[in-house]
Amino acid sequence: MLVIMRDHASQAEIDHVVSLLHEAGAEAHLSHGEVKTIIGVIGEREVMYALDLEGLEGVEHVVRVLKPYKLVSRDFQAHDTVITVGTATVGGGAFAVIAGPCSIESEEQMMATARAVKAAGATMLRGGAYKPRTSPYAFQGMGLQGLKLLRAAGDDVGLPVVTEVLDVRDAETVAEWADVLQVGARNMQNFMMLDELGTLRRPILLKRGLSATIEEVLSAAEYVLKGGNRDVMLCERGIRTFETYTRNTLDLAAVAALKTLTHLPIIVDPSHATGRRELIAPMCRAAVATGADGVMVEVHIDPEHARCDGPQSLRPDEFEALVDDITPLVTLEGRTFGRA
Amino acid sequence: MLVIMRDHASQAEIDHVVSLLHEAGAEAHLSHGEVKTIIGVIGEREVMYALDLEGLEGVEHVVRVLKPYKLVSRDFQAHDTVITVGTATVGGGAFAVIAGPCSIESEEQMMATARAVKAAGATMLRGGAYKPRTSPYAFQGMGLQGLKLLRAAGDDVGLPVVTEVLDVRDAETVAEWADVLQVGARNMQNFMMLDELGTLRRPILLKRGLSATIEEVLSAAEYVLKGGNRDVMLCERGIRTFETYTRNTLDLAAVAALKTLTHLPIIVDPSHATGRRELIAPMCRAAVATGADGVMVEVHIDPEHARCDGPQSLRPDEFEALVDDITPLVTLEGRTFGRA
Amino acid sequence: MLVIMRDHASQAEIDHVVSLLHEAGAEAHLSHGEVKTIIGVIGEREVMYALDLEGLEGVEHVVRVLKPYKLVSRDFQAHDTVITVGTATVGGGAFAVIAGPCSIESEEQMMATARAVKAAGATMLRGGAYKPRTSPYAFQGMGLQGLKLLRAAGDDVGLPVVTEVLDVRDAETVAEWADVLQVGARNMQNFMMLDELGTLRRPILLKRGLSATIEEVLSAAEYVLKGGNRDVMLCERGIRTFETYTRNTLDLAAVAALKTLTHLPIIVDPSHATGRRELIAPMCRAAVATGADGVMVEVHIDPEHARCDGPQSLRPDEFEALVDDITPLVTLEGRTFGRA
Amino acid sequence: MLVIMRDHASQAEIDHVVSLLHEAGAEAHLSHGEVKTIIGVIGEREVMYALDLEGLEGVEHVVRVLKPYKLVSRDFQAHDTVITVGTATVGGGAFAVIAGPCSIESEEQMMATARAVKAAGATMLRGGAYKPRTSPYAFQGMGLQGLKLLRAAGDDVGLPVVTEVLDVRDAETVAEWADVLQVGARNMQNFMMLDELGTLRRPILLKRGLSATIEEVLSAAEYVLKGGNRDVMLCERGIRTFETYTRNTLDLAAVAALKTLTHLPIIVDPSHATGRRELIAPMCRAAVATGADGVMVEVHIDPEHARCDGPQSLRPDEFEALVDDITPLVTLEGRTFGRA
Repeated sequence: MLVIMRDHASQAEIDHVVSLLHEAGAEAHLSHGEVKTIIGVIGEREVMYALDLEGLEGVEHVVRVLKPYKLVSRDFQAHDTVITVGTATVGGGAFAVIAGPCSIESEEQMMATARAVKAAGATMLRGGAYKPRTSPYAFQGMGLQGLKLLRAAGDDVGLPVVTEVLDVRDAETVAEWADVLQVGARNMQNFMMLDELGTLRRPILLKRGLSATIEEVLSAAEYVLKGGNRDVMLCERGIRTFETYTRNTLDLAAVAALKTLTHLPIIVDPSHATGRRELIAPMCRAAVATGADGVMVEVHIDPEHARCDGPQSLRPDEFEALVDDITPLVTLEGRTFGRA
Repeated sequence: MLVIMRDHASQAEIDHVVSLLHEAGAEAHLSHGEVKTIIGVIGEREVMYALDLEGLEGVEHVVRVLKPYKLVSRDFQAHDTVITVGTATVGGGAFAVIAGPCSIESEEQMMATARAVKAAGATMLRGGAYKPRTSPYAFQGMGLQGLKLLRAAGDDVGLPVVTEVLDVRDAETVAEWADVLQVGARNMQNFMMLDELGTLRRPILLKRGLSATIEEVLSAAEYVLKGGNRDVMLCERGIRTFETYTRNTLDLAAVAALKTLTHLPIIVDPSHATGRRELIAPMCRAAVATGADGVMVEVHIDPEHARCDGPQSLRPDEFEALVDDITPLVTLEGRTFGRA
Repeated sequence: MLVIMRDHASQAEIDHVVSLLHEAGAEAHLSHGEVKTIIGVIGEREVMYALDLEGLEGVEHVVRVLKPYKLVSRDFQAHDTVITVGTATVGGGAFAVIAGPCSIESEEQMMATARAVKAAGATMLRGGAYKPRTSPYAFQGMGLQGLKLLRAAGDDVGLPVVTEVLDVRDAETVAEWADVLQVGARNMQNFMMLDELGTLRRPILLKRGLSATIEEVLSAAEYVLKGGNRDVMLCERGIRTFETYTRNTLDLAAVAALKTLTHLPIIVDPSHATGRRELIAPMCRAAVATGADGVMVEVHIDPEHARCDGPQSLRPDEFEALVDDITPLVTLEGRTFGRA
Repeated sequence: MLVIMRDHASQAEIDHVVSLLHEAGAEAHLSHGEVKTIIGVIGEREVMYALDLEGLEGVEHVVRVLKPYKLVSRDFQAHDTVITVGTATVGGGAFAVIAGPCSIESEEQMMATARAVKAAGATMLRGGAYKPRTSPYAFQGMGLQGLKLLRAAGDDVGLPVVTEVLDVRDAETVAEWADVLQVGARNMQNFMMLDELGTLRRPILLKRGLSATIEEVLSAAEYVLKGGNRDVMLCERGIRTFETYTRNTLDLAAVAALKTLTHLPIIVDPSHATGRRELIAPMCRAAVATGADGVMVEVHIDPEHARCDGPQSLRPDEFEALVDDITPLVTLEGRTFGRA
C-alpha cells in the first residue's frame, strides 16, 4: 500500500500516519520528494484491509498494491485448477459445454432437452429450478420439483447437472440434487451465500455481477476458497453498459485477463450476455479463441413456448451446429472436450 | 405490449403470434401498415410477463408498455406513503435525517455517536452490525453484539435505529433489535430476502443496486409490497459509471423521477455515492432541493480510527454544521424534519 | 509520478527505469520494501507526460500524481474567475440563466422567444444555428442566417448571445456574430477546435463529453487557456450510463467536485441531461443548491412545433415559473443573478 | 414510427397528433385498445426524423422503427463491400492486418517498423502524424513531416498507409499523402469532418466513439456514404465502462452484430481497447473468430522509448508471432489475408 501525501504535507501529518500504521502493526517506509512525501506500507493482508487512511489530514490518496484476494491468484497456485464432476472435466485443457433450458418446465421438456444436448456433445446439463426475475409477476421456477426433474434427466443421459442456488437456506437441498451449484450475477456479492458455499463439497459456478470489476469477481471467489471449497469456476456473462442493442456487453478481454490472474477455470455465457440468438455462435467461437475453458448456452426444445429467455435460446439443431462449429477451434486451441 | 413485426412479415407469421397470444389468454389488436404490421396486446400483468415473444419468426421486437410493478406506483396510490417509526416520520412532507457510523465498533463509539447525532438533529440512528465487504480479509462487523449496542444507543437517545440485514436467515433476529431494516445495494435483487422482508412488520430501507435501473428498483420494492409490507423507503446511493473521481455517480435525476413514479419516500445517501467528505454537504443540499424525503449520512466520532469508510465519514461537528446548512432549504421546500 | 515495480523486480530492471528517467530529465527517488521497490519521479509536467513507462520490464504500474492540467486549477488561481459579457456576468457569486431554443428556426420564433426569456429573467440568450445531429437525415440548423437572427434577437432585448461552433472553419465567423462560443459535448476533445478557440477573444462555454471524466474536462479547458483565452465556463450536461429512463445521467457531484478543483464557472444543463421536461425544475433547483454558477435551459414558444428537442423544451410560462422557483434558492446560496 | 398515447388519452389529443403528422406529410394509422391508442406512422426518413412528437400532450412515448441510416445497411446492399487500396484488400473474405507505431517519431523508427511489419505479414502500414492527446502538455505528433515519413516508408515496403485526420482543415493534405484516412474515436461524431470526408476519394477507417452505440456508429458512417464516398471501414476499439483493469472494454458482440447490420468491413483494434500488451494476442484471435475483417495493432521497434502507448505496443518479434498465431484461425474462418 502506498500513502501519497498532499503537496507540502506537514511533518505532523506524516508522523500521524506513520503512528497509525505502527499501531495497526504495519511497517512504514518514507520517501521524501521536494513537494511530496510518499509512504510505502508493508503488512499482512488482514491488517492492510482493515486500515482506512484516506480520510486523514494531509493524505491525498491511497494506492493499494496488495490485492484483496490471495487463494485464487496465479501467484498462490501457478497451475490450472482442474475440476472433475461425474463424467465431466473442466480446466487444464478440458473444455466444458454446459447446455440446457433457462428454466425447467416439465419432465418432457427436461428429458427431451437432456437427450438432445447430450447427443450434440454437451458435457454438462443445466436447468433453472429457482429463477431470479426482475418482476414478482414473472414465472419464478418449479423449485424442488424442478430440481428432481433435472437430476433425473442428468442421470438418464449420464451428464452432471448445474443449477442455481437462489436462497442460502436452500443451499444444502440443492447440493443434494445437483452436481454443480451456480451463483447468479445478482448474488455474486451475497457474501453470506458465498460463505455457505465455501463449506459445501460441490463445485461452484460463480457468475460475474452486472457491474462487478475483475477484482471483485476474484474477491467473491476468494470467499468460497477461504471457506475450504477450492472448486470454483468463474463465468463471464456480460456487464451492464450504455449499449442496449445487446442485453449486456460480453467482456472477453476480462476472460483473457482472468486467465493470467487466476488458476480457476473460466466459462463464457453468450446467451445472457447478448440476449440474441444470432450472436451466440460468433461469441462462442470468440470465447474459445480467447482461451476460455468452456461455454454455457441456453437450449430449449421449443423456444417459442419457453417460459423465459426464448429469444436467446437455441433449438437442439442449432446447438448441434454450434458444437460442430466450435470443434475445430477447440482443437486448434489445444483443448479437448471434457467428457469421460 | 406491442409486437412489432419485421418488414413484410408473412401472414402465417402474424397468425402464429396471434394464436400464441390467444393461447396465453391475451387479446391481440392488429394494425397493418404498408411494410409493417404491429400487434397491440392486452392482458393481465401476470400473463404479459409470462409471454416471451421476441424469439418468434417474423417478430422484430417487443415493446412492453405495461410496467413490471403495480403496488408501488402513483397510479395505484396517488398520495405519498408516510412511514412512522418510533419518534420519526418520513414521507408526505416529513424529512428524515438518518445518521451514524458505517460500522458499530464499540459501546463507547456507538453511545457517543448517538448522542452527538441526536443533539445535532438526526431523526434516526444508523449503524452497521453485519458489513458486506468486497474482500473476505476486511472487517465484517460485530454481528448480534453490535445490534444490541445499536439498540441500546437508540433507546438511550430516543431515536429509532436502522441497520442492514445481510443474510436472510438473520432477518427475524435483526427485526427484533432494529426498527428499520436496510437492504444493501448488493442485495437489491436478492429476491428471496425481499420476499422474507415482505412478511415482516418493520419498515424497509431499500438501497438501489450499483447498476439497477429505476424500473428495477421499483420492481424490487414491489416484491416487498406484494408480500404485505407497505412501508418501504427507497434509497439512491450512487450508480456505477466510468467516472472514478467519485466512488459512484449520485443520480439525483432518478430521485426526481422516482418522486413522479412512486408514492414511496426517497432517501439520498451522499456518503456512499461520493466517497468524499467534502462533497457530502453540497449533495445533501442538492438532495433537499431535488425533493428527496431524507438523507442518510455517515458520522463517526473519530473518522481516523473508523474501521470502514473513514474518508467519507463526517465528524460530529461537521454533521451539526450540515444539519444547520440544510435547515433553511428544508423549510424552503415546504418540509419539516420528521421528529416527534 | 510513482513507478511501482513488480514484486522482486531485478536490480537491472530498476536501474533501467532510473536511467530512462534521467535521460528524460526527471529525478528518481527510490523506496525499497521487502518485495517491492517504488520509484518516485519528479520533473516538469511536459517531461512527465512525455514519459510512457508502463510497458517496461519489471514495471507493474505507474501512478500519475501530477495532474494533466495547470492553468485551470485552484492551485494556480485560488479565486473564482468572473466572466463579463455585455450585460451578463457569471462566476464569483453571479448566477447565469441561459435560455433559448435548441435550434433557431425563424425570425418570429427567435424574437418571440428572446422577449419571453428576457421578461422571465434570463441573463443570456441561446440558440443553435449549426446543429450536430446523429442522423444525416435530421434538420441541421439554419447556419449563418440563423446566427444573424440570433444576433438581432439578442440586440433587440439586450442580452448577450450564446451559440455552438460546430466546425473549426466557422469559428471566426461565429465569433463575429455571437458573444459566447459553445463547444458541444461531441467536440469536447476536438483539440484542434480548442486550440483555435484559445486564440479568440470570446468567452467559451465548454460542454462535458458524454463519457468524459472530470480530469478530461479540465484538460480540455486547459487547451483553451493555454492558447491565451482565460474566459471558459464548463457545462455539466449529463454523462452516458446504463440508465435509459433519463436521456443521460446528470452528474451533480461532478459539479461540486469541479468547484473545488477549478476557478472556472460551472453551468448545468438539465434539458439535455434529462431529456424530460418534468425533471428540469427539480434539477435546476438541485444545481443551485450544489453551488453551480448558472443553468442553461431550452425554451421554445411552441415546443410542439420545435424542430428539435421538443420534449425537453419549456414553454415561456414554464420558464418564468422556473426562474421564480429558483430565485429564493439563488438568494439562499448567497448568489445574485448576473444581470447588468 | 409508433406513437404510444398515455392511458385514456383524449380524442382531442389523438386528433392533434394526427393533424401534426398530416401537416408534416406522414400517414397515421390508428389502433385503439381499451385503455391505450397507438398511432402507426409511415413516411419518408427525412420527414420522420424531422418530427419530434414526444413533448405533445397525451403522448407517452415514441418508438422509432425506422433506422436513422440507410446506405450502410444490409437492407440497402446485401453483399459485403470490398475495399481495395494499393496492394491491400479488405472485406468480402479478405482479412486486413494493419500495423505500425502509435506515433511517427523519426525516419529510422518509421522505416525499421515498416520493414518489420511487412516482413511479418502486415497488409497495411499505420502511423500517427497528428495525435489527439488528453493533455495539452503531451506530445502532439510530427504533423506534415510525419506524413511524409509515413508515405516514404509505405512506398519503400510496398504497403498502403493509414493515418488519422485530426483537423478537418488538414483533410485534403492528409489525403494527398495517405491512402486511408482514419477518423479517431473522439471525432466519430465530428459531423463536419464526416461531411468533408464524404467528398474525398480515399477509403475511411472510422473508429467507434468511446460511448457510441452501434446505431450511432452506423449513422456516422452514413454521413460519409451520403457524401458520395462508399469506402468506409468501421473499427471497434473498446467502449468506456466501469471496468478499469483494461483501458476500455472491447465489444466483440458489437462486431458480430455489425456484420449482420451492415455490408461495410469491420476492423478490431485490441491495442487501444485493452491497453495491455498481454491481451492483444487473445483479442486478435477472438476478433478473427467473431468474423471481423481485420485487426489493427500497434507495433514499435522499441516500445520502451515510444513517445506514446508504449505499454500496449508489440515489438516486431511479438507481432510476427501474433500473425503466425492468427493465420490458422483466418484460414479456418474461410478468409485469406488481403495482400496483392
